[in-house]
Amino acid sequence: MKKNVFYEYHTKESGLFIKPSKVLYSKKSKFQKIEIIETKNLGKILLLDGLIMTTERDEHFYHEMMVHPAMVSHPEPEEILIIGGGDGGALKEVLKYKDVKSIVIVEIDKDVIDTCKKFFSSVSFGFNDSKVEIVNEDGAKFIKRSKKFDVIFVDSSDPIGPAKTLYGEDFFGNLKNSLRNLGILILQSESPVYHLDLIKKMHSISRKRFKIAKLYLSPVPTYPGGLWSFMFCSDSIEPGRVERKLPENLKYFNLEIYNSCFILPNFMKELN
Amino acid sequence: MKKNVFYEYHTKESGLFIKPSKVLYSKKSKFQKIEIIETKNLGKILLLDGLIMTTERDEHFYHEMMVHPAMVSHPEPEEILIIGGGDGGALKEVLKYKDVKSIVIVEIDKDVIDTCKKFFSSVSFGFNDSKVEIVNEDGAKFIKRSKKFDVIFVDSSDPIGPAKTLYGEDFFGNLKNSLRNLGILILQSESPVYHLDLIKKMHSISRKRFKIAKLYLSPVPTYPGGLWSFMFCSDSIEPGRVERKLPENLKYFNLEIYNSCFILPNFMKELN
Repeated sequence: MKKNVFYEYHTKESGLFIKPSKVLYSKKSKFQKIEIIETKNLGKILLLDGLIMTTERDEHFYHEMMVHPAMVSHPEPEEILIIGGGDGGALKEVLKYKDVKSIVIVEIDKDVIDTCKKFFSSVSFGFNDSKVEIVNEDGAKFIKRSKKFDVIFVDSSDPIGPAKTLYGEDFFGNLKNSLRNLGILILQSESPVYHLDLIKKMHSISRKRFKIAKLYLSPVPTYPGGLWSFMFCSDSIEPGRVERKLPENLKYFNLEIYNSCFILPNFMKELN
Repeated sequence: MKKNVFYEYHTKESGLFIKPSKVLYSKKSKFQKIEIIETKNLGKILLLDGLIMTTERDEHFYHEMMVHPAMVSHPEPEEILIIGGGDGGALKEVLKYKDVKSIVIVEIDKDVIDTCKKFFSSVSFGFNDSKVEIVNEDGAKFIKRSKKFDVIFVDSSDPIGPAKTLYGEDFFGNLKNSLRNLGILILQSESPVYHLDLIKKMHSISRKRFKIAKLYLSPVPTYPGGLWSFMFCSDSIEPGRVERKLPENLKYFNLEIYNSCFILPNFMKELN
């Protein structure tokens, strides 16, 4: 942040600027720089190593689109794993399903969770729920020897910094081994506008490992390009299947959105 | 533009910044400030009164989504009107339909067309086509006494500056009077992320005038919020109808996108 203006570069010459009304927190943890800034229009914002992770204004676009497709399609999602997700946004959405029995969050950086719990009361309130177990470890290491889960969400930061182990071929293999029958894996897979090569690479790796590996899209206004991608991977569950009632009061997601989010524009049509 | 950095505010405290490699053109016309800047990653960019109108990198998102839904649904789109559209992007898409007989462009600011013709060879090449008639007049005045058209596109700038007459109730009535039977009117209707009240107002006006008035959405990466809305208005043609083959080599639009773009997220679901 220079002269109280925050710049996130999306290309080498363009991106988002924010003039926060207040810097609420700024500290280097063992893994990364954690900042919380306050704005009037976007609410509080979490930055990791200078990149926007979560804003109060638009976190629901991202977290609802990450969580509900898998949760509504799995016939019995009892044991859930979230890798990353230290802001608690994905957790908040998973907790809306009362049939979930346990949720393990593997967030490498304890300070992210502690900071978010302190500042994001509307997003990060789920960490104290009795169903939730927090593990502060590298997700790529954890997954090598973990028990099996019904649904795994990889809610990672970008493929630089502490999340870079979460984009390799081994990681996908280990994720697959940690899924039960009928298991579903969801990964955030970056911006089709600016990271199409990375999406193609992740998609190609996931197709080798899973019978079903489909990309879906959602707007996320404060992320690069305003358009974001996710991958839905499974050996048995086709996306679009609806096994349960959606939670009420979702701000973005509904079942028609679910059916349409797998439709890709021409520039990425070859991928699904 | 300050110190060679261009800032477009989307809220009072946040927005897009661009550090152009070159300012190619900067001049105040009779109506507004026209700037063309050059960037490595977004290509050339047209700014009107400091707001991004067109970038070479993502103009196809906007122009394809504005033009093809109506053109593919109208049974015989021979006479077309474009209000605004001085960059030629909508015109470029309309010209892909060989059965179109005439296209009238009503762009208030001749200097916008002249500047775009000079700098945007990949976007603005349609103005010299023999089917095209250019009228430099206020669209709201033109439409009061115009002949009738099969399809009208309102490709206006934002509701400040010279385009502010294009957001009133009279304008919608006059547009309706200028449509033939089976006519379709398409308007750009701003960002659901930042201008939802304006969208609600435009939608409510258009519903009073047309039997069918439906909103549809598209990502436009460099527009505020990265998500944009359009309105499809008609007294007889339901959106989704497919009357002709799509042009080849579209970068964004396809018929599945057409079917899905009218699906709205929960926060705006009441509108369609």
